[in-house]
Amino acid sequence: MKKILFLFLFLNILSSKIIFAQNVDSLQIAKIFSTALKDNEGYHALYDLCKHAGKRISGSPLADTAVNRMSVWLKKWGADTVWLQECMVPHWVRGEKEQAKIISSVLKMNESVPVCALGMSIGTPADGIKAGVIEVHGMGELKNLNPADIKGKIVFYNGPMPPETIFTFNAYGHTVGQRWASAMEASRYGAVGVVVRSVASHIDSHPHTGSMGYNDTIAKIPSVAISTEAAEKLSAALKKDKNLQFWFKTSCQTLPDVLSHNVIAEIKGSKYPNEVIVVGGHLDAWDMAEGAHDDGAGVVHSMEVIRLFKVLGIKPQRTIRVVLFMNEENGTRGAKAYAEWAKTSGEKHIAAIESDAGGFTPRGFTLDCSDAQKFYVRSKFSPVLSYFGAGDFSRDGGGADVGYLRDICPLISDLAPDSQRYFDHHHAETDVFEEVNDRELEMGAAAVASFVYLLDKYGNGMERNGGGDE
Amino acid sequence: MKKILFLFLFLNILSSKIIFAQNVDSLQIAKIFSTALKDNEGYHALYDLCKHAGKRISGSPLADTAVNRMSVWLKKWGADTVWLQECMVPHWVRGEKEQAKIISSVLKMNESVPVCALGMSIGTPADGIKAGVIEVHGMGELKNLNPADIKGKIVFYNGPMPPETIFTFNAYGHTVGQRWASAMEASRYGAVGVVVRSVASHIDSHPHTGSMGYNDTIAKIPSVAISTEAAEKLSAALKKDKNLQFWFKTSCQTLPDVLSHNVIAEIKGSKYPNEVIVVGGHLDAWDMAEGAHDDGAGVVHSMEVIRLFKVLGIKPQRTIRVVLFMNEENGTRGAKAYAEWAKTSGEKHIAAIESDAGGFTPRGFTLDCSDAQKFYVRSKFSPVLSYFGAGDFSRDGGGADVGYLRDICPLISDLAPDSQRYFDHHHAETDVFEEVNDRELEMGAAAVASFVYLLDKYGNGMERNGGGDE
Repeated sequence: MKKILFLFLFLNILSSKIIFAQNVDSLQIAKIFSTALKDNEGYHALYDLCKHAGKRISGSPLADTAVNRMSVWLKKWGADTVWLQECMVPHWVRGEKEQAKIISSVLKMNESVPVCALGMSIGTPADGIKAGVIEVHGMGELKNLNPADIKGKIVFYNGPMPPETIFTFNAYGHTVGQRWASAMEASRYGAVGVVVRSVASHIDSHPHTGSMGYNDTIAKIPSVAISTEAAEKLSAALKKDKNLQFWFKTSCQTLPDVLSHNVIAEIKGSKYPNEVIVVGGHLDAWDMAEGAHDDGAGVVHSMEVIRLFKVLGIKPQRTIRVVLFMNEENGTRGAKAYAEWAKTSGEKHIAAIESDAGGFTPRGFTLDCSDAQKFYVRSKFSPVLSYFGAGDFSRDGGGADVGYLRDICPLISDLAPDSQRYFDHHHAETDVFEEVNDRELEMGAAAVASFVYLLDKYGNGMERNGGGDE
Repeated sequence: MKKILFLFLFLNILSSKIIFAQNVDSLQIAKIFSTALKDNEGYHALYDLCKHAGKRISGSPLADTAVNRMSVWLKKWGADTVWLQECMVPHWVRGEKEQAKIISSVLKMNESVPVCALGMSIGTPADGIKAGVIEVHGMGELKNLNPADIKGKIVFYNGPMPPETIFTFNAYGHTVGQRWASAMEASRYGAVGVVVRSVASHIDSHPHTGSMGYNDTIAKIPSVAISTEAAEKLSAALKKDKNLQFWFKTSCQTLPDVLSHNVIAEIKGSKYPNEVIVVGGHLDAWDMAEGAHDDGAGVVHSMEVIRLFKVLGIKPQRTIRVVLFMNEENGTRGAKAYAEWAKTSGEKHIAAIESDAGGFTPRGFTLDCSDAQKFYVRSKFSPVLSYFGAGDFSRDGGGADVGYLRDICPLISDLAPDSQRYFDHHHAETDVFEEVNDRELEMGAAAVASFVYLLDKYGNGMERNGGGDE
């Protein structure tokens, strides 16, 4: 009985301590949210990035503009240091506006359809590629077909994003393989080109680009994304005339690598300057529009951590480091450069948070860490962030860029905003500033800053005594 | 010790029972969400409502169109019964497009600014009202001024919605008093008209209308909303020329009451047909645009409960009744008519859920019920709905329409979607179909249907044995 009473007493003390901490923290976090919403400064920075460095694909002059302009904002917002970290990046250029047609004498059809080259694809010959079409609905279907039917053809990968999947990033994960790997698969069977249904949530009229891959052992064939609307049209036409021809012409190419930069800014820790919390988004964007959600929002979310800490006079005990990664979209060279450097910097990375899922209202964060840390974060941080709608830490995984720190950093996490609208704009011409709501953007910045605040104050669940350093 | 062991055992059994129920329910609820997202039917119904019955203010022919068209959808979706419930509604008409000007010889200014009459306001004389302007920032400030300075003037209520408030409905509640009551207050001091800053989240160029009130003991004076942008302009001009004049002209008027209808549809309960769960939104909308978020979304959310139950073969044990209320915006006559009828219908209303906060991604539901029921709903329903992002039952209150059932219904609740964008469009010309994202809309429908499913299955926490009827 005594033991049980003691246990009760202990739990009681523990819970009152946690509750007290949550009250104090919720006041500070409320200030972070209110300040972000009231000042709206991140939205102005996003405007600058989108309107002055819109098509900032790696290796482009606009990517340099983005580096320079965001450095200015970080200095203006009071970062203790701002520096540029060199990295060599791929230099893929789109060339002229792509063209494509569905051609069928049976259907009296000679219709232009919207396509765009997939990132890193080779271009077509000068007069394009014209061939018959084989339609499949995802990777792995070609092996069931007669190889003779594929040879010399264009393979049309028409697998849709499943609309019934609630968390749209899961639907994306389900579908994106055909964008990345289809040119390799189709080439193995002797196809001459690949047309891939855009990975998009809706039937719309514009193609969504994105990275594709080649393998040095297989002949490279050109690959384009087709708008979902045109994909439906092509599929319908194929049902009526399986011998129709598809023609497309691209002039994209990969030029020699170019010197580029990550932008790095920090507030030095007052107590443990050698312990680092990284927060980052990627500075490059596809050349389709303005990269507002992907990943202007993440850039702004990250930079605002410094602004909000400075405005509110929060003096972190650890070093808070913002890293704006170059080249996430087609190489992650910036992330690799940072990770290599970090491994030799003599610092201790305690957490790395990434925002690369759009400027929508935050719901929570993913976690890639030990079970003990998940329990720690979920029981300790989730309640206070939940009041602000950002306390969902239930999903695993994270970190296209910060994932490279996994070896040296025991807690990797992604901001997880509401995902319903993301794939309307992802890698497409509609990813523009006007599609970002300032309040939703600022809520995301506040959520990231609040998580960083808690990590700085309480550690990552494995510091010092193994239970956080409260 | 024995007692404690017994308690542990009891808690154990209880929790395993709850966990099992949650597993079964989460499968059913996953089907509800997937079906809503896949079928997208609600979005088509919303299109019909917005594009064929856009400016469906109470008493208008378009309000009748809305009644008829939504009845057709409810029949198509398989409601057991669909009927129209009569109610007399106010018939306020806007008249000609409103005009307004800021006039200052000092500032060489004679500038048109966007205004609109507030709902239920009287109009101005035929040549408008022209007078000097007194600016205040909310209700109650006039009493501190010299009454002689107010007499014969136009009072300009320029209190902004506080941007730092996270849940925007709280900011709205903080501000909307000056829209509703300012004409009464200003008239008491001898003012001749009222100009009210639009209750809106942003600085934008269009006025946001909404209801205002009069009191029979005080002279009625005309009242208009001015766009937030023009409110800033007027305020700036007043700082430079406090003697400037404001002119506005409206021709709105209130005609005799008109016969209108609530649309009521239901699935009869298989086991307890006399026990009713009401779910509703309001069918009328302001005459500024299409009432897509306010409250086309709520209409669709409610109607889809029937569709989703029918498609998925869910046979409720209680009667599920959809009520599309007429006249929420300027009188709540539909809600009153339903409540009066319900009090004499001999039924038992066990819950009433309203959706009137837009077609944005759902976060949860408000609760207006006993503490014991809140505990019941939060502990039993919240975990399973949280997986779908709709498990936040932390807020109190609810029910502009279903609130009239409070006397006879022990659980009142509002769907609480993400609130960041709502007051961009509320009562303004931008509240159009195109501003609704279909996935966000359907997620809301699924959340409402899921809550209804749980209430039907487990009761409202005070049924039969007092702890739900599981």
